[in-house]
Amino acid sequence: MAGRTVTLDNMNPHLITMEYAVRGPIVIRAGEIEKDLKAGKKFNFTEVIRANIGDCHAMGQVPLTFFRQVIAACAKPDLMKGDLIPADVKSRAQSILEGCGGKSVGAYSDSAGVEIIRKHVAEYISQRDGVNAKYEDVLLSTGASESVRSVLNLLNVHKDGKPSGVMIPIPQYPLYSATLAEYGVYQINYYLDEENDWALSIKELERSLNEAKKVCNPRGLVVINPGNPTGAVLTEQNIKEVVEFAYKHKLFLMADEVYQHNIYAEGAAFHSFRKIMHNMGPPYSDMELASFMSASKGYMGECGLRGGYVEVINLDPAVKRVLLKSVSAKLCSSVLGQCAMDCVVNPPKPGEPSYDLFIKEKTAVLDSLKKRAQLVADTFNSFEGFRCNRVAGAMYAFPKFTLPQKAIEEAKAAGQAPDFFYVMQLLENTGVCVVPGSGFGQVPGTYHFRTTILPPLEKLQLMLSHFKDFHHKFMNKYK
Amino acid sequence: MAGRTVTLDNMNPHLITMEYAVRGPIVIRAGEIEKDLKAGKKFNFTEVIRANIGDCHAMGQVPLTFFRQVIAACAKPDLMKGDLIPADVKSRAQSILEGCGGKSVGAYSDSAGVEIIRKHVAEYISQRDGVNAKYEDVLLSTGASESVRSVLNLLNVHKDGKPSGVMIPIPQYPLYSATLAEYGVYQINYYLDEENDWALSIKELERSLNEAKKVCNPRGLVVINPGNPTGAVLTEQNIKEVVEFAYKHKLFLMADEVYQHNIYAEGAAFHSFRKIMHNMGPPYSDMELASFMSASKGYMGECGLRGGYVEVINLDPAVKRVLLKSVSAKLCSSVLGQCAMDCVVNPPKPGEPSYDLFIKEKTAVLDSLKKRAQLVADTFNSFEGFRCNRVAGAMYAFPKFTLPQKAIEEAKAAGQAPDFFYVMQLLENTGVCVVPGSGFGQVPGTYHFRTTILPPLEKLQLMLSHFKDFHHKFMNKYK
Repeated sequence: MAGRTVTLDNMNPHLITMEYAVRGPIVIRAGEIEKDLKAGKKFNFTEVIRANIGDCHAMGQVPLTFFRQVIAACAKPDLMKGDLIPADVKSRAQSILEGCGGKSVGAYSDSAGVEIIRKHVAEYISQRDGVNAKYEDVLLSTGASESVRSVLNLLNVHKDGKPSGVMIPIPQYPLYSATLAEYGVYQINYYLDEENDWALSIKELERSLNEAKKVCNPRGLVVINPGNPTGAVLTEQNIKEVVEFAYKHKLFLMADEVYQHNIYAEGAAFHSFRKIMHNMGPPYSDMELASFMSASKGYMGECGLRGGYVEVINLDPAVKRVLLKSVSAKLCSSVLGQCAMDCVVNPPKPGEPSYDLFIKEKTAVLDSLKKRAQLVADTFNSFEGFRCNRVAGAMYAFPKFTLPQKAIEEAKAAGQAPDFFYVMQLLENTGVCVVPGSGFGQVPGTYHFRTTILPPLEKLQLMLSHFKDFHHKFMNKYK
Repeated sequence: MAGRTVTLDNMNPHLITMEYAVRGPIVIRAGEIEKDLKAGKKFNFTEVIRANIGDCHAMGQVPLTFFRQVIAACAKPDLMKGDLIPADVKSRAQSILEGCGGKSVGAYSDSAGVEIIRKHVAEYISQRDGVNAKYEDVLLSTGASESVRSVLNLLNVHKDGKPSGVMIPIPQYPLYSATLAEYGVYQINYYLDEENDWALSIKELERSLNEAKKVCNPRGLVVINPGNPTGAVLTEQNIKEVVEFAYKHKLFLMADEVYQHNIYAEGAAFHSFRKIMHNMGPPYSDMELASFMSASKGYMGECGLRGGYVEVINLDPAVKRVLLKSVSAKLCSSVLGQCAMDCVVNPPKPGEPSYDLFIKEKTAVLDSLKKRAQLVADTFNSFEGFRCNRVAGAMYAFPKFTLPQKAIEEAKAAGQAPDFFYVMQLLENTGVCVVPGSGFGQVPGTYHFRTTILPPLEKLQLMLSHFKDFHHKFMNKYK
């Protein structure tokens, strides 16, 4: 072979460091087992149940009729000629196509997205919050992930010999740790208060900020609400305290609000950061904020279409111009993904032909998720050594569990984190694929894993039953 | 207002520096004029003709029936029930859906893309080159742009107090300069030989490399073939010389081959770098190579669907694992964009129901582009002070023009580059929007602009006629 020009020794070291556990070694192993199963190899189970990723359709959730009609009509406008497609779908598709170059979803859109879709997003936000939004503040992107990357990139600067730092919750969604590692931005961990339903403690925020100041210039604060992987929903009061904290320390606020439609617990409600900042009045209502939203979650779960947006408010106009310029070389996000986002923010209205079916399908998904949220938390709480907060929102549970000393020692002997060891055993013995807490972060010495609540009810019951058997045997083996 | 937390003084300076001229100030001004026209404001023209960007559908090119049928069927599988969709489209859509989680394009794919589509890409490459490709080497992405960014990111490392450097052609497609600026990688300019049909001169490559070694560690070499913005098609001999040069200097080769279907000139042919490296035998056939392809160009022009891929061959397996990991946090590219890529690499075959229409539509686009390529070069060559190479491939002409001294002085007085000044005058007086050569790079003291050949024939003739009048008046004014 010719000498390699790129090796681990001379390549970008940040890419070597970064980890994204949701698609890490456990999930790679799950894929291998699936191939082995197909090839006829025998396991103690007949299928892998992928509870590692919030991938609704992959777990059998059926796409909403309205979404797919709009997308098919935008892709193949002559489908609108006959009666195949309801009138309200046609009018939506036509209004999107009017906003596309050459009336084709095959034309590039503006880098920030198709203008009419950005306007629909702004209307949706205005209605949701009772506070007017401007379409110029909305940037459509390849899922919410791309927006998160673009905004974090703004904060990436070395100054006075120190990197920027961004505060992220622990546990967190590893998009944040992966992107910060890639950029070389310092990850400032603040621990969520597990005993207090995963709330943000201002004392803990102050502690982590003060500690981080020695090694970085803290610039941003990420909050995920509803929580991933925690399943928590923040109270209005808690959000207010966080806003005050960010103001006091001049931190740029990033609110990951992609699960805003996923609220299950009695008494819980989604409060957007922008609404609460507005209600708090000046100076809080003038603070900069980036809020992220996606077509991948909620009741629609259209992950593969890659629709998402960020709304950035109160940005310095010069900085906003740079942000817009910085995304321009990527040209634009998928226009059909933008169409999916349009469906989320501009759904059928009462009286329109698609309304009844839309509501029926949407409600069915959300009702079922609510049941599954309860079932998952209740079941885990019945396991020896488990403690699971309620799944108030989002699509995940993040139970804490204790492990016998013998298991911890065997894991360490194998060079594995104890929760990784447990989760790998679970996969090899039951086919159930979840992600160890070490991939999201946890208080040192505690063990967790993240599971989605997405398998359909029957499969979820089966999964929990396999899980229970496994746990029982595991505990006996290492007792 | 609250004090801003992010200002030009404390944000990522790379984002302030980076420029992407294809969507720069000229194009922003074109958008303003379009809005003014709509609002009834009077200009010397009735429409803006956007020849600034390779956006086929925006210029009126009609999507291919086959592509849109496959995409609509994947988005709304019940469309396949009746006779609406031909059998070969159905079988393609079904095979893609079989490869999607939950048989839905709404599920995330693997980060590298849907496996069956990656296999189709590998088969396409194998057939094209007569050299077997492996699907494991293929990564699907959001257009080719995202792949270019991912691969350049591998090379981004500071060593011995110097940044990496990547060689790019001048003139170049500004995705490269923008991404290198964003990453802080040093841009090593090598000038293409305009007098020699924009060929790569090895002497010039040696010169630019030697000069750059003082300030960076050269690591990569980008070649765009067919050329953007040059419209050139490289000869087999020239590619061989470039491969030898890259081998000699241990440079990672990046071949931007997104225009491989766009070849017009008699005697010109597309030769992939991988085929030529293979034919050269060891050690060249063992060299690392990244080759980029897109669904946005060619005869399909499906820019808005954001399909693309990179094939990386001979990569160190450990480096390849890091590359795959580095894209995993972005989850995946649009699955419908991946479907568009599938259509490109797996088009209808002779005897299949969609074949005749597909060939008819494809041929019509390519024949018309060939005529327009000739027309554009011929017309510019008839202008006073213009010199335009033939448009042998791709979608652009990049003519050189001279300007009267008076015009150069007036431009400088206005703080504008002379070619920017000329192009802005063109826009304000005729509505024709092209991009100044300074956005792509050019030999200092020379002036160029890039125009696409994409306006439909009649509009293109009109555009060239307006252009001719403008040029005549401009030359008289500043004589």
